[in-house]
Amino acid sequence: MSLPSQIPEGYRPLDSKTLPRYLGDIASVREVLGGQPDNWSVAEVGDGNLNLVFVVEGPSGAVCVKQALPYLRLVGDSWPLPLSRNFIESEALIVQGRHAPGLVPKVHHVEPTLALLVMELLRPHIIMRKGMIAATTYPRFAEHISTFMARTLFFTSDLAMTAGAKKERIATFCINHELCKITEDLIFTNPYYLAENNRWTSPQLDDAAAAIRADGDLKIAVSDLKVRFMSDTQALIHGDLHTGSIMVTDSDTRVIDPEFAFFGPMGFDTGALLANLLINYFSQDGHATTVSPRESYQAWVLETADTVWNRFHDKFVGLWSEHHSGDAYPDVLFTDADLVARVRRRYMRKLFGDTLSFAGAKMIRRILGLAHNIDLEHIEDPDRRAVCERRCLHLARDLLVNTATFRSIEDVTAAARAVRESVG
Amino acid sequence: MSLPSQIPEGYRPLDSKTLPRYLGDIASVREVLGGQPDNWSVAEVGDGNLNLVFVVEGPSGAVCVKQALPYLRLVGDSWPLPLSRNFIESEALIVQGRHAPGLVPKVHHVEPTLALLVMELLRPHIIMRKGMIAATTYPRFAEHISTFMARTLFFTSDLAMTAGAKKERIATFCINHELCKITEDLIFTNPYYLAENNRWTSPQLDDAAAAIRADGDLKIAVSDLKVRFMSDTQALIHGDLHTGSIMVTDSDTRVIDPEFAFFGPMGFDTGALLANLLINYFSQDGHATTVSPRESYQAWVLETADTVWNRFHDKFVGLWSEHHSGDAYPDVLFTDADLVARVRRRYMRKLFGDTLSFAGAKMIRRILGLAHNIDLEHIEDPDRRAVCERRCLHLARDLLVNTATFRSIEDVTAAARAVRESVG
Repeated sequence: MSLPSQIPEGYRPLDSKTLPRYLGDIASVREVLGGQPDNWSVAEVGDGNLNLVFVVEGPSGAVCVKQALPYLRLVGDSWPLPLSRNFIESEALIVQGRHAPGLVPKVHHVEPTLALLVMELLRPHIIMRKGMIAATTYPRFAEHISTFMARTLFFTSDLAMTAGAKKERIATFCINHELCKITEDLIFTNPYYLAENNRWTSPQLDDAAAAIRADGDLKIAVSDLKVRFMSDTQALIHGDLHTGSIMVTDSDTRVIDPEFAFFGPMGFDTGALLANLLINYFSQDGHATTVSPRESYQAWVLETADTVWNRFHDKFVGLWSEHHSGDAYPDVLFTDADLVARVRRRYMRKLFGDTLSFAGAKMIRRILGLAHNIDLEHIEDPDRRAVCERRCLHLARDLLVNTATFRSIEDVTAAARAVRESVG
Repeated sequence: MSLPSQIPEGYRPLDSKTLPRYLGDIASVREVLGGQPDNWSVAEVGDGNLNLVFVVEGPSGAVCVKQALPYLRLVGDSWPLPLSRNFIESEALIVQGRHAPGLVPKVHHVEPTLALLVMELLRPHIIMRKGMIAATTYPRFAEHISTFMARTLFFTSDLAMTAGAKKERIATFCINHELCKITEDLIFTNPYYLAENNRWTSPQLDDAAAAIRADGDLKIAVSDLKVRFMSDTQALIHGDLHTGSIMVTDSDTRVIDPEFAFFGPMGFDTGALLANLLINYFSQDGHATTVSPRESYQAWVLETADTVWNRFHDKFVGLWSEHHSGDAYPDVLFTDADLVARVRRRYMRKLFGDTLSFAGAKMIRRILGLAHNIDLEHIEDPDRRAVCERRCLHLARDLLVNTATFRSIEDVTAAARAVRESVG
């Protein structure tokens, strides 16, 4: 296999033999693991498509090691991906960890030449999406994720940063444009024409897919979003904030895998999360059985969506009150309390609209694009799956095209309930 | 004087003695000038506030040399300014020259270490603002400047560039954040509170200045624009496109001095130009005399404003038809001619609104902020000047706050005529 050109001199994929020797030279890692490299056990636990992921255990503790591979393999395709995404992930984790302590894995060591990152091993956490498919509730989740989003987005926006400091960070994250391009294609473009790698539940959804490809209003709306995604440097966003990027226990929540991070529109993160909650809500009708009815779980999912947005809103506005140190809406101009309240209402209303629009785009891509969600994919009966998917598409289109008709998150979750009753 | 920290090793200001020896080693410059360095004449023609500017003449031709100084001196203030602005200017001139050939000075040589740029000497051009104060018409101007704006903005936008190529250029221009900060403060912030370096025609405009500082709608509108300026990387903009940055003859037009260039909202350029035409229009009543009435010149100025926007609009849309190669509004989605027309109408309508908003902000800063225009400053009688300025402020506020009520450029120029009749 020939390697892409941007591979740094000295890059080599590590393995179970070479990794302990490498880690043995890093004081911070030795301290976590304890003992000697010879006593450390190493297990490769990644799926090998994109990254190597090792769990390394020593007498005193364990770490997770993530090393980027120069290729992405997915559904038979293979294309080069820059190793710098590992550096981007570590930069993002460090920023997020500073602003939202305890909500991302701790970074122990970063090695850009090897495209390698040593971080806290999360256990007994599981991927939240898997827990949600099994109808597990997470009582602390709304509180945690609303804090994560409010703090990481606020503190990297023009409300908290000076324009100069922000531009220096924007420049750093501009190198991540190849990962941005994946999003631009897979989310904002491919589902809206007959792209080669699209797939959907066929023939059940052939009509729905064709209707979306012929929907001028929708194509304009999603293309406007794509322009926002490409040109609006509102804040440092995670870039892939779905329930597969969140690891949870009953009491703990951690956001992982910010390889797609860059300065983009905040609504892309808040919308991704909302989309994935709504997808899970609709998918439950495909998982429900007599012994495992899902109505009460579905209620929990929608309540969670309401709570996440409302707490996010309040926390973001609270941070604005207490930590406004950026160049946007400067205090010297906004001394009048009523005017300040008006500015914040407008800002949050716009962010709410962005959230719904991006959520709609995220829902559609998971049903008509290349990469699907196991929430839906694990529904074996295609007729049953298609009903759930059709409901997702219906609400998604409404969120994207009729955004302004939703005045509150409760309007959105009420619409989800209504679609479930009436579509399918 | 101590030097700022970002001064590159090897930087030294050149003078009439050291410059010819330096230029003698550059083949492209020797070729233009002809003869030997000993025969070249050198004159320093800058005002010494910001940059050294030399005219160097040889037997076969002449060049202009611009070297950045590490400080800006203005109205008694002095603050460090990065020398990298000279590199930014050369990068911008090269890009603009590629997209709009013949409308910027040709670059002969760039030397980042010395913060020095050798370019075509423009003669017998004069600064357009001076010509307009003297009521000189420029019959080719609307045609030229509309081409400059359409081509430089279109070809550096997401309509023409791929997102990845654009992000690489965005990163380069992010270093110019200190010059952006000057704009952020002087245009979008200071006129709206009692900033120390504000000035205005006093006491005549004390009431108008106070009204603007108390105008909540206006402060929200201008602060929204500031956020756009800080975070929207729509295209590579000139960043200071007023009539003082344009050199003209009867038949030639050149845009100079893109030191403030960066990836920002297009409307900031198109708005700057419109603002400066409107300011000149209102200022003419302060210059009119019995021997030099200005009514017909004022008519020419407003006709020019109409023509500039309308041609810009048509050329921009024409480029979109012929040279669309960027990632925005991809052809694979927009195969239907009616839908394409709709997308373009929406895009141009938004750009028109941005143009008016930024024009309003630009007009206000020239009357209430630190840096004023000689169009108005050269009106000696303060009562007479204040009448012109009050009309500018009146229209400017309307452009910023009631943007959507203007449906065409003819609405704007009609409003200018109406304000001239009714305010004062």
